[in-house]
Amino acid sequence: MSLTIGFLIYPNLTQLDFTGPYEVLARVPGASMHVAAKTLDPVTSDSGLQILPTVTLADCPQLDVLVVPGGPSVDDWYEDAEIIGFLRAQGATAKYVTSVCTGSLILGAAGLLDGYKATTHWAAMDNLAPFGAIPTEGRVVRDRNRITGGGVTAGVDFAFSVVAELAGPEVAKAIQLGLEYNPEPLFKGGHPSVAEPELVEAVTAMMADRLDRRRQAAQRHAVAG
Amino acid sequence: MSLTIGFLIYPNLTQLDFTGPYEVLARVPGASMHVAAKTLDPVTSDSGLQILPTVTLADCPQLDVLVVPGGPSVDDWYEDAEIIGFLRAQGATAKYVTSVCTGSLILGAAGLLDGYKATTHWAAMDNLAPFGAIPTEGRVVRDRNRITGGGVTAGVDFAFSVVAELAGPEVAKAIQLGLEYNPEPLFKGGHPSVAEPELVEAVTAMMADRLDRRRQAAQRHAVAG
Repeated sequence: MSLTIGFLIYPNLTQLDFTGPYEVLARVPGASMHVAAKTLDPVTSDSGLQILPTVTLADCPQLDVLVVPGGPSVDDWYEDAEIIGFLRAQGATAKYVTSVCTGSLILGAAGLLDGYKATTHWAAMDNLAPFGAIPTEGRVVRDRNRITGGGVTAGVDFAFSVVAELAGPEVAKAIQLGLEYNPEPLFKGGHPSVAEPELVEAVTAMMADRLDRRRQAAQRHAVAG
Repeated sequence: MSLTIGFLIYPNLTQLDFTGPYEVLARVPGASMHVAAKTLDPVTSDSGLQILPTVTLADCPQLDVLVVPGGPSVDDWYEDAEIIGFLRAQGATAKYVTSVCTGSLILGAAGLLDGYKATTHWAAMDNLAPFGAIPTEGRVVRDRNRITGGGVTAGVDFAFSVVAELAGPEVAKAIQLGLEYNPEPLFKGGHPSVAEPELVEAVTAMMADRLDRRRQAAQRHAVAG
């Protein structure tokens, strides 16, 4: 079995949205991995990590699995012809159109989630509806060939769902054991549904500017689109 | 508070051993992050991901927290004067000397785990004793200022332990919520203690060559050292 798996990367992405699923998906037998960006220059993540793309958007082969990670800069791309064009072209032929975290908002801006159930980072859930997506709670949400993961670390759970779908549960279990994926969070509280309300308030307040900007961008796009 | 945090990276490392904790630790207020390698050339992971270092081993500032990720190539460095010298010098002054996955074996080869409890990837546990470390089960193991994490994805749990230690539990909880760290593994079985015995046997068989080579390298080092 040969499987072409590709990630869109861009400046100011959250690298773990990408590197978490990359590590899992690269272990699927027959997978050929592509890291696609506008140019082959290093891409710097929101935390300063520099990663090299393997291919430009223009040269990227047709993908079986398209994965779009998120990050603070997602709303910079809603009207970017090159990125939106890439996603529309790949999305039309890919077997699976997928995202992690706020990557779903870029898929949304490309019109690829219209009428589909989808998820995103918990703090960005109200940005899905303006793109016609049906906001759906869940660490991994599937609707037909769209598979979307929640915030950042949800990318690992997302990736195992994709592996189970692509290669079956036995392959997913073997990769899980190889990567020792038996998590033991130090504290309960990694999602608002299980966190102390004061903490949710404090973290939301820290993100306020970014969330406002993003909400406006989604609304603007909805009005324009 | 200012905190200097540095990762050793090298060809053929397992990138998630590094990128998982990097994402968490970079969010500690006041953290300055360093990615140290022999040269500033891109470093290619065992799954083909290319990452750019920020500093050479020679130019790396004195670190408060030294983190060594693992990977299939760890035994290539047991007698590498440049890497072992870097680890010894940094290890002598760092507040915390830490590792993820088989990174602990390189720390061991540098003599930094002699007499310390430590952990590593489940399939490599019998490589710790030749370096004088006390093999200890646990996703995160702490002994004085040594903090070691288990295989690959344990790096995220490891990192939250380090954050709680460096900056307190409230900061760790806020980062956990920001990164939506509320894992939901698709299958139980990410560690031999909870996996189907046939799966453990199959995955161990797939790793047999690498494990043999690594066992011999550790024994050779123990005899030589």
